[in-house]
Amino acid sequence: MVRRRRMVRRYAERPVDPAAVDRMLSNATRAPSAGFSQGWAFVVLDTARDVGRFWAATTDAEATGPWLDGMRTAPVVIVALSHRDAYLDRYCEPDKGWTDRDEARWPVPYWHVDTGMAALLILQTAVDEGLGGCFFGVPPARTAAFRAEFGVPEGYAPVGAVTVGHLPEDGGGTGAAGSPARRRRRPLEDVVHRGGW
Amino acid sequence: MVRRRRMVRRYAERPVDPAAVDRMLSNATRAPSAGFSQGWAFVVLDTARDVGRFWAATTDAEATGPWLDGMRTAPVVIVALSHRDAYLDRYCEPDKGWTDRDEARWPVPYWHVDTGMAALLILQTAVDEGLGGCFFGVPPARTAAFRAEFGVPEGYAPVGAVTVGHLPEDGGGTGAAGSPARRRRRPLEDVVHRGGW
Repeated sequence: MVRRRRMVRRYAERPVDPAAVDRMLSNATRAPSAGFSQGWAFVVLDTARDVGRFWAATTDAEATGPWLDGMRTAPVVIVALSHRDAYLDRYCEPDKGWTDRDEARWPVPYWHVDTGMAALLILQTAVDEGLGGCFFGVPPARTAAFRAEFGVPEGYAPVGAVTVGHLPEDGGGTGAAGSPARRRRRPLEDVVHRGGW
Repeated sequence: MVRRRRMVRRYAERPVDPAAVDRMLSNATRAPSAGFSQGWAFVVLDTARDVGRFWAATTDAEATGPWLDGMRTAPVVIVALSHRDAYLDRYCEPDKGWTDRDEARWPVPYWHVDTGMAALLILQTAVDEGLGGCFFGVPPARTAAFRAEFGVPEGYAPVGAVTVGHLPEDGGGTGAAGSPARRRRRPLEDVVHRGGW
């Protein structure tokens, strides 16, 4: 399944079974999280109207192009958000004891990392359901509009959105339009360092 | 498999098949990455000596306790590192065009997020191999010592380490020692917002 997963950037018109979406969400919440903080939230948009609101808030109405035109065909968008305060609160508890809530204690922002893991579980579950998905960021310049449109409370940061849908007849193509086609996967010997660098 | 995965914090003495470690690494590099940047690296420690060097660099020699004593029994440690510059370089390319290398363009640090996804694939592959794993952070105060011990170049940040090993006879227990035992998974209705908050 790991090897079958790829980003799908264009979708068939067929609707997605709501039960499949529920399984994606259920698996997303099985992601690991530091201290089991579970500082995440998922905005689920599964009607044409709600998906339209997403694109209106996060892109220019007149913007077009192969990537955006394809992505806008997705019948479902799930936005994964991280909630830093849930982590800082959790690590104030006695078994952790970081009562100063100092972010410098954190090697990296695990609220974003854990939420990313949850998004990967959504993508994997889509593959298991015979669907396709694509993970992408909400541009920082559009975060305020997204937040306002969907009533997202302060403190929740969109880590990324996942489009979900059935693959089109032709399989949806490979690689992002305009990207250096078929970039090479780095061979293991480039990225693995045994016993040290 | 998603439901079987859990953090294992104590291991049997049996060694891990090197081929299983290779499959973990191979799957790790199947993680998605923004722009297919693949800005990650993995330090693989699979001998008692190298694993000992890891604990010596990242913890106090006299430090003890159920968590640390258990984790130190792992025969394999894989440290996943992110490489921000690989992302900034990738997004300077013509199809992206972010030639100012401004990090404010990024919704969240996808170098950490993508490397976290790779770490999740290591954990999942461990389960598929009949092994256990645990993801945890390298304390910021110990990053310099870790970096020096293993010759990690500047620019690579340890996102987290994964211990890997066979489960002990008793299954390795549940929950971190000292943590509020069996914290509850947040129900879906707490974390899912349909059509908005």
